[in-house]
Amino acid sequence: MDGEIISVGTELLMGQILNSDAQYIAQKFSEMGINLYHQVVVGDNMGRLCECIRQAMSRSDIVVLSGGLGPTQDDMTKWAVAEVLGVDMVEDSQSREHLISLYQKRFNQAVPDITENNFRQVQFPQGATIFPNHNGTAPGCACEKDGKIIVVLPGPPRELQAMMETSIIPFISSKLDSKIASRYIRVFGMGESRLETELRDLIDAQSNPTIAPYAGFIDVTLRVSAHVGLSEDPYLLIDPVVEQVCERLGGLVYSTDNESMAEVVSKLLTQSSQTLSIAESLTGGMICNELVTVPGSSVYLKEGIVVYSNEAKERLGVSKQTLETYSAVSEETALALVRNIKKRAGTDWALATTGVAGPGPDVDGNREGLYFIALSGPDGEQVYQHTGGEGRSRIRWHATLTALDTLRKALLKNKRS
Amino acid sequence: MDGEIISVGTELLMGQILNSDAQYIAQKFSEMGINLYHQVVVGDNMGRLCECIRQAMSRSDIVVLSGGLGPTQDDMTKWAVAEVLGVDMVEDSQSREHLISLYQKRFNQAVPDITENNFRQVQFPQGATIFPNHNGTAPGCACEKDGKIIVVLPGPPRELQAMMETSIIPFISSKLDSKIASRYIRVFGMGESRLETELRDLIDAQSNPTIAPYAGFIDVTLRVSAHVGLSEDPYLLIDPVVEQVCERLGGLVYSTDNESMAEVVSKLLTQSSQTLSIAESLTGGMICNELVTVPGSSVYLKEGIVVYSNEAKERLGVSKQTLETYSAVSEETALALVRNIKKRAGTDWALATTGVAGPGPDVDGNREGLYFIALSGPDGEQVYQHTGGEGRSRIRWHATLTALDTLRKALLKNKRS
Repeated sequence: MDGEIISVGTELLMGQILNSDAQYIAQKFSEMGINLYHQVVVGDNMGRLCECIRQAMSRSDIVVLSGGLGPTQDDMTKWAVAEVLGVDMVEDSQSREHLISLYQKRFNQAVPDITENNFRQVQFPQGATIFPNHNGTAPGCACEKDGKIIVVLPGPPRELQAMMETSIIPFISSKLDSKIASRYIRVFGMGESRLETELRDLIDAQSNPTIAPYAGFIDVTLRVSAHVGLSEDPYLLIDPVVEQVCERLGGLVYSTDNESMAEVVSKLLTQSSQTLSIAESLTGGMICNELVTVPGSSVYLKEGIVVYSNEAKERLGVSKQTLETYSAVSEETALALVRNIKKRAGTDWALATTGVAGPGPDVDGNREGLYFIALSGPDGEQVYQHTGGEGRSRIRWHATLTALDTLRKALLKNKRS
Repeated sequence: MDGEIISVGTELLMGQILNSDAQYIAQKFSEMGINLYHQVVVGDNMGRLCECIRQAMSRSDIVVLSGGLGPTQDDMTKWAVAEVLGVDMVEDSQSREHLISLYQKRFNQAVPDITENNFRQVQFPQGATIFPNHNGTAPGCACEKDGKIIVVLPGPPRELQAMMETSIIPFISSKLDSKIASRYIRVFGMGESRLETELRDLIDAQSNPTIAPYAGFIDVTLRVSAHVGLSEDPYLLIDPVVEQVCERLGGLVYSTDNESMAEVVSKLLTQSSQTLSIAESLTGGMICNELVTVPGSSVYLKEGIVVYSNEAKERLGVSKQTLETYSAVSEETALALVRNIKKRAGTDWALATTGVAGPGPDVDGNREGLYFIALSGPDGEQVYQHTGGEGRSRIRWHATLTALDTLRKALLKNKRS
């Protein structure tokens, strides 16, 4: 079954508000296994709105409109639906009673002072199924014609989402004969294009489930989705493919449950009751901040120091000689940082970063993007040299994910041994 | 002139990502005075993509496509444009050279190992104007036919936004017979609806320039835009209104040049040759990270400590007694933190944060969202109690902006005296 979303509102067209309704409806439709090929945004204009509804009905089985159910003349979505279907608008007496009782409560009046335009909210295309609005005044509705369904929803997200959950999803599900489910594999250390090349044969061999890569800012997510009958278990198809991808990619996969790198590292540290401290030069607090984003980080994150200046590095115990002989961006400085923060905080693990965020090379001539990650743990110290590409933000994010990934791998190795 | 936005990507259709690109482009088009009547989202499918481009060209003068410029077979936006225009795809040798040099830098290899599909990114419809991508590998382009313009942009927001600013806005503006210019006033400490109420008379009195508020996650931006003929100076209209708004809002305005709070604070510290150190509990490195995002922060940011655990607070010199008597989330702890980090780093200014990010109250029963900001500077120490609302991310961002804003006000006061 094919679906299409039409979002109605001039404020969307002008970019005044973000179209989160369309994303929400799209997610719910995808979960129900409805194919989505088009989304449209159109303003509060009768001619263009009718044209969009006609086009959607010509190519889709279910059309969902959101927005334009309010009391003013600008709110014309239901009128456009009636126009396209060739039916009259009629008032629903039950909805009218309910609206009056809402206003009685809101203004605490026996005979509430309701302006006449408010009753536009309880008029619907003839023959519509009406859905109550538990978070607002305008009910939604659905109309059916020639095997096609048109659903009309209020625009405010709180109203729309509640109506989707309680009324629309059950209504549409009763008309479907299949469903879709997905798992998300997160990969760090290989770009989208190389990943696709590596997995080409698997991607091409699969039609159900399908495998699709999505590039993030630094890492890549693979979505594995299966489409099955209502009584079937989609994970019987999905799980073996996830396993196959993980076997192929090995240590590059950091989550098969769509967790962030910080969530994965937090979980490993918490489960093993081990502690961490961090000395950040290049990343300037970004690694700590990522970890603190995850609730419960106070259990393992004992201390972080942002040693952005050479004075701060010296205060943490990096010798002037090391800084002068090898420069601040060097293996030696990274190792001295990691050794001293671990000692200071008395933790099981420590990370340190130093590098050149740019723009341009640093005062010692180290090139933009060069950085070092040092890790200290139960099995000793390691230091790694990396290149983070170009651009301050990219370089610092790259170093943050690399540092966390380095720790992740060491935690996994330590757990196994 | 009428514009239309086509967002390309199955991940948008399925609701995996929010269509923030369409909002961004819509805002910029509205600012340029281009009328927007339609937005469309379509998946990575050649037939449907061509159909959408044809329809857009039949009803709009400028069509902007975003997404689908990557290296994989799924990325077909430029091929669809070439198909609709009836032209061949040709490789741009300059873009090819640039792509190779990017990979040389990224992987630090003289002859980088680039998979062949990457060169799809440097193929364009014949006759296209090519726009460099300063934040990624795929350039954008524009094609013109029969007085209509098709612009093709990369999907990742960082890449798209930079290309809009540096290339697309100037390119499109050169084809318009009037221009729009804007200034952005950034406000912290008052919500969008209250701000609109405060400025209602100014907003209603203006038609050119217009004043429009946009809510960010924590702060609010006011856009003041004027529409003038090509030979006129829009700032003759804009500047007096900006002044009027600033007079009305006073210290709530932190920038009239669309700078971030971190940029404003960085500039004030750099200009006055003063230094800063930070002890972060609640914010866990977020304040340092925000400042390090701005190039040149090493000049003034001498040290940061993430004292997320009580051990780390004690190591910085907060007494066990203070922590036990007043708890970690208290005026006394915030003051001890700020005093000790300032002493340790020997800086002119110091900031400290402590609070409850949640979810739920802390072990001492302090409620979620409660936090303290302490500031120490040439004029002594102050500590402020705040409430950051609900939700880990909101509370931590609120505290980060509040801390930087507190420092900003003190720096301004210090400068004047």
